[in-house]
Amino acid sequence: MSAPLRIGIAGLGTVGAGVVRLLQTHGSLLEMRAGRPLRITAVSARRREVDRGVDLSGYAWVEEPSTLAGRDDVDLVVEVIGGEGAAAATIRAAVAARKPAVTANKALLAAEGVVLAAEAEAAGTVLRFEASVAGGIPIVKALREGLAANATTRIAGVLNGTCNYILTEMERTGAAYEDVLAEAQQLGYAEADPAFDVGGHDAAQKLALLATIGFGAAVPMDALKVEGISGVTLEDIRHARDLGYSIKLLGIAQRAGDELEVRMQPSFVPGSSALGLVEGVTNMVVVDADFVGQTVHEGPGAGAGPTASAVVADIVDIARGHGGPVFGCPAEQLTSPAITTLGTAAPHYLRLSLDDRPGALAEVAGALARHGISIDRMRQMSHETDSAPVLIVTHACVRDTLDRALEEITALDACGARPIAYRIEVV
Amino acid sequence: MSAPLRIGIAGLGTVGAGVVRLLQTHGSLLEMRAGRPLRITAVSARRREVDRGVDLSGYAWVEEPSTLAGRDDVDLVVEVIGGEGAAAATIRAAVAARKPAVTANKALLAAEGVVLAAEAEAAGTVLRFEASVAGGIPIVKALREGLAANATTRIAGVLNGTCNYILTEMERTGAAYEDVLAEAQQLGYAEADPAFDVGGHDAAQKLALLATIGFGAAVPMDALKVEGISGVTLEDIRHARDLGYSIKLLGIAQRAGDELEVRMQPSFVPGSSALGLVEGVTNMVVVDADFVGQTVHEGPGAGAGPTASAVVADIVDIARGHGGPVFGCPAEQLTSPAITTLGTAAPHYLRLSLDDRPGALAEVAGALARHGISIDRMRQMSHETDSAPVLIVTHACVRDTLDRALEEITALDACGARPIAYRIEVV
Repeated sequence: MSAPLRIGIAGLGTVGAGVVRLLQTHGSLLEMRAGRPLRITAVSARRREVDRGVDLSGYAWVEEPSTLAGRDDVDLVVEVIGGEGAAAATIRAAVAARKPAVTANKALLAAEGVVLAAEAEAAGTVLRFEASVAGGIPIVKALREGLAANATTRIAGVLNGTCNYILTEMERTGAAYEDVLAEAQQLGYAEADPAFDVGGHDAAQKLALLATIGFGAAVPMDALKVEGISGVTLEDIRHARDLGYSIKLLGIAQRAGDELEVRMQPSFVPGSSALGLVEGVTNMVVVDADFVGQTVHEGPGAGAGPTASAVVADIVDIARGHGGPVFGCPAEQLTSPAITTLGTAAPHYLRLSLDDRPGALAEVAGALARHGISIDRMRQMSHETDSAPVLIVTHACVRDTLDRALEEITALDACGARPIAYRIEVV
Repeated sequence: MSAPLRIGIAGLGTVGAGVVRLLQTHGSLLEMRAGRPLRITAVSARRREVDRGVDLSGYAWVEEPSTLAGRDDVDLVVEVIGGEGAAAATIRAAVAARKPAVTANKALLAAEGVVLAAEAEAAGTVLRFEASVAGGIPIVKALREGLAANATTRIAGVLNGTCNYILTEMERTGAAYEDVLAEAQQLGYAEADPAFDVGGHDAAQKLALLATIGFGAAVPMDALKVEGISGVTLEDIRHARDLGYSIKLLGIAQRAGDELEVRMQPSFVPGSSALGLVEGVTNMVVVDADFVGQTVHEGPGAGAGPTASAVVADIVDIARGHGGPVFGCPAEQLTSPAITTLGTAAPHYLRLSLDDRPGALAEVAGALARHGISIDRMRQMSHETDSAPVLIVTHACVRDTLDRALEEITALDACGARPIAYRIEVV
């Protein structure tokens, strides 16, 4: 019998309590798979007197999470506090003590992951973060290990369950964005302050982490132009469906010459494609790589059970002695390519509102033409107001050219507001 | 710089040549990810004078593959010979030399995997087989490691690309089984002797390996009643579609009380489900597990590139020092539950041919009723011959009860031949 792996858990929110419950539930199964008992010895959280639905009486209670790593009875630290301050201190203390750390903290990793990885690798210890990306889908492991023999070509993902729930519910029920968001908040699928999710930032952090593994490249968050879903209307969703598409908050990472293209934006994807069919809070990552071709990875993107599954899988790996660099190649060998969010040429969907007067459509078409953008389809909707909704599907064009044309169109007297533009992605 | 991992490759067919090509293509990428150079030093195949499209001039040529492991310049043996004789000898020689082995050999593992695993674990070495199941999908790793924190509830898979290609082409083009099979053979998607694939045996071996990992249980192949796709007709496919289903060669492994249920049979699955939408030679594995819920894993099920991707991922793991038991828990702790292929109660689709005379349908319905099987839907097709095609969808019933009823029906004067029965699976 090997010695137990003694675990200190920092953070006892939904995820932390889920990790405790999992370790308590599957003690003998995990011992068999990990080759040694996995034993919680110490826990830490802000408030002690909270009923978390799990029995914590056998564990030492630690007030200051960053002291967990220094304890003689802790071999591994789980950081599920969230945020950056105390979480970073907790992980850094583990690294300083040369003890492995497991985290679910995408924000911290997206902000400081490369630095933390370098520190962990210099200290000869392990930092794992499966739970930070796509909840229960073992996609970090798949990219870092399962697909390690390939040069990654593209990573495409639906990575935020809140956004995907809202978009699929809007499509399914015909309810407006605000109503579905309120419902999602009631169901616990959206935070009271949903800005981080619906603004695309949560998904962008996850995409950046996947891109770092897949392309061996640092992806600074401030290099990303992130677009959220709050501007998506029921009209857009209906038009998309009429054209054979679904609207998804889609993340794409792919090489573009010497640059790395990393985008997070609402996009039209073919309604019958795997990504077009992802429903509700489910996440999906589609990886294209040179030898293997395309693999698809789908599963629950959040929740106590899926997140605990990912955290404990990392613990089992560490118990088995599986190490290796944090992002699959040593932090010092990660490259720093220029990041572009523009994307290659693609058709775009445009929705605009035009004064109902002669010549208005011609002015729009003229502005597009001056930028070399040709029109695949155009449709003016019937209307009862003075301004007419107009839909345009362009032929392939580059986003910055389109943006310049849209500026001209916005400046037209006939145009009510800046047109909405969504990329039509071939996935 | 760490010492190179020196690789001996036994077998230079499509897969072996693919492994050589991958290792030659991605030398520096793999060195970065594995932490050390991966270097082929010796190769072995039956015939030397074959143009395999890769340069083998830098490698020692070994006549007898089982001698690879004994060489001083070989640290790891790749077995991609296939079959059981020479392949088993090659792997056993590696185990005897306490050197890790990587294989793509599902037949050998399905037959002798538990014994080989016990031998490798006793010798303190590693045996990996990602490429044996579902080609390029890293599903062995996902089950063994990524989902290791869970008790597996069910594994469902479309695991044979040949069968899935044939079934989806029949549905897509309306061509008959024999014609699509011939086309698949021309395209290289089916073997000259397709019996092993279309009979379901290839898929059953893969399912058995996944079940061993997922449920920690030995699955002797002779305990499985395997049904292939050669009896599936265009009529069945059309009827399935009319009812909202696709026909897939579906493997299911799940606990059934103290028994382990392992089935491989053509089944109706909802046409809009993930499994119902798997097309062509693509494979898919859907895993249900207690904490994570459902994850879906999809990708190319065969081919030189995907298989090489899986083989080399195993090599990278070993180069990093990742060991652990072959099936995710020690071979000596694998259980030996009774295996059942019957399955829980489910609706079934029946197709039979009845003499067109009064009372024939009543006799069929009576036989079903005597076994407690009630009918959800029944349809007699228009026909120009003396016998009428009849379709029946039953309410949920257990297969062995149904089989007894079908025996009675087969014995009826009015019945032309034993009815066709396919399970309708909720996935």
